[in-house]
Amino acid sequence: MAAQGFNATCTQGQDPSLQAPSAPAAAIEAGLAQVETLLNATYTDHQLETQVNAMCMHVINAGGKRIRPRLVLTVAQALPQYSAPRDHENICHVAAAIEILHTATLVHDDVIDKAPLRRGAPTLHELEGNHAAVLAGDYLFTRCFALLHRPRNFDIIAELSRTLSQLVVGELYQLEHEGDLNLSLETYYQTIYAKTGVLFELAACAPAFLVPDSTALIEPLKTFGRELGIAFQITDDILDYSANSATLGKDVGTDLNDQRITLPVLLALQTYERRADKNAQAELIAAIKQADLGAVQAAIAATDALAQCQAQAQAASARAQRALEVLPDSSARDLLSALPHKAIARSH
Amino acid sequence: MAAQGFNATCTQGQDPSLQAPSAPAAAIEAGLAQVETLLNATYTDHQLETQVNAMCMHVINAGGKRIRPRLVLTVAQALPQYSAPRDHENICHVAAAIEILHTATLVHDDVIDKAPLRRGAPTLHELEGNHAAVLAGDYLFTRCFALLHRPRNFDIIAELSRTLSQLVVGELYQLEHEGDLNLSLETYYQTIYAKTGVLFELAACAPAFLVPDSTALIEPLKTFGRELGIAFQITDDILDYSANSATLGKDVGTDLNDQRITLPVLLALQTYERRADKNAQAELIAAIKQADLGAVQAAIAATDALAQCQAQAQAASARAQRALEVLPDSSARDLLSALPHKAIARSH
Repeated sequence: MAAQGFNATCTQGQDPSLQAPSAPAAAIEAGLAQVETLLNATYTDHQLETQVNAMCMHVINAGGKRIRPRLVLTVAQALPQYSAPRDHENICHVAAAIEILHTATLVHDDVIDKAPLRRGAPTLHELEGNHAAVLAGDYLFTRCFALLHRPRNFDIIAELSRTLSQLVVGELYQLEHEGDLNLSLETYYQTIYAKTGVLFELAACAPAFLVPDSTALIEPLKTFGRELGIAFQITDDILDYSANSATLGKDVGTDLNDQRITLPVLLALQTYERRADKNAQAELIAAIKQADLGAVQAAIAATDALAQCQAQAQAASARAQRALEVLPDSSARDLLSALPHKAIARSH
Repeated sequence: MAAQGFNATCTQGQDPSLQAPSAPAAAIEAGLAQVETLLNATYTDHQLETQVNAMCMHVINAGGKRIRPRLVLTVAQALPQYSAPRDHENICHVAAAIEILHTATLVHDDVIDKAPLRRGAPTLHELEGNHAAVLAGDYLFTRCFALLHRPRNFDIIAELSRTLSQLVVGELYQLEHEGDLNLSLETYYQTIYAKTGVLFELAACAPAFLVPDSTALIEPLKTFGRELGIAFQITDDILDYSANSATLGKDVGTDLNDQRITLPVLLALQTYERRADKNAQAELIAAIKQADLGAVQAAIAATDALAQCQAQAQAASARAQRALEVLPDSSARDLLSALPHKAIARSH
């Protein structure tokens, strides 16, 4: 679920095909700097001396790639009615709030999953104990809602609240279906929507709530964000079986270790079922239950499951790109339009 | 920290000195019924089948006494500009939101404290595991903010967000000072303000944000709520050493077991220090470290610590009552005015 690599490919300055950042790209970088200021400024206003500030800074600055704030800022630039003097501050506040929401859910996920590492560093619950991590996550939720005070927009608050409830449901859904080899494709897609798609959806549509005369764009932008998130998550799930650990920057096989049944395994199981190859199916099931990564990888490789996964990621990517057609031509739209392809064409 | 007994004394229908509920008392009961509807209605709007609804219903309906919603409703009745047709629904939504916030923090506290029982029933993390309890708490936070959508009042959202951050800080503060025999009185008061006072403060002032022309009452009502909460918490801390378990409806000695250093122990230690009775002081410290309830109770009883505690609760109660003088005479104000005394004159 981590986000390595996506950021780098989104940074126009790192794209060798471009000589210099375009005006929107420069504005996005300036916005990201402002988001960093907001992320770091919101934890020092408390009277009580406490570990909470230090803990929050630890997780906020633990190397997140700011994919979601970047998405917010890029969409804003692509809206025809966007006006920097009027909208910039509100957009940055919402971008920071969404990043904090994301971070808060990661902190609680790490407690739930008992994960020792996140982005290569010890997780908060490892450093400080479960209790502190639960509370730091709660505190981040409050900071998230506090940042939403500036735009004074009720719809955004309602959307963010709905998003958080979906993220919780997504995590519960994942826990309920741990090791569930009868997981349906429908449930898999509901789960990745609720755990990843929904926050990309919020990041993509949020600017259209803040920028006047943009309500007609809310639904297409939601589609864009949702499908981008799904393409991104399917690719994560593929890489967890197919990547090289060194390239990926983290262990492969974490889904298998945690008995999260993801698309590569699901499609391999379905393939053996369709072939009526009961032996191969039984061997794969046994390998999954034993979390035998090599055996599961071999069983997947003996089918076209990974190619099917890529086709499904490609389909989501195409749906995301089509949703952008509602936006007028602009270099910011071009930046958005490149994201789905970059989300699926990555090795880490 | 649990709230047994307080509710019963607040229910005018159970007060034998009254023949029939007054108009405000009847309105408060009607409001509480509406709050129950809201508390139970907010968990069924989710598409995904999941355990989250059942878990939330379990904690919401686990026998909480609705002290905080009752406080919200009673304050509303006492505001001179309160108009039921205009304000009733908003007040009920905020009352429900505050109860949900309270419940969410209890769920996370139980995870943190590894508590097996809450209100005599198994806690959620005992029934469903830590992960489900963390997520159910998170989900309750989202429902809390969703309920605030109706009043469309930014100040309430900001206050609620600030309150949640204080509750988190209060819990962290308590954890940091577990077993800290050098705890200062100032830190004790900061902690009980942050863990209890702040939510009573919010419940008391919230109606003044919603009812027009009431802003001048916000600060006095905050004082009322804060001091009421402090009186209530000191009394809880006294009862945890002095009550009979059967009367209290839960075990006494939980603070000692959890190495929470509360006012009775603090004042007993200070008394021995003042008397320069090093032997008695050392024995009390040893008894605390061993969580030997009988020995700690005996050491407290050999001082006037409990009487000092009661005097401090009485002082907070008096400050709460004085804060109400800003309200015009009314039977609702009389109901409020009776609360501080009831908070401290209870045996459970």
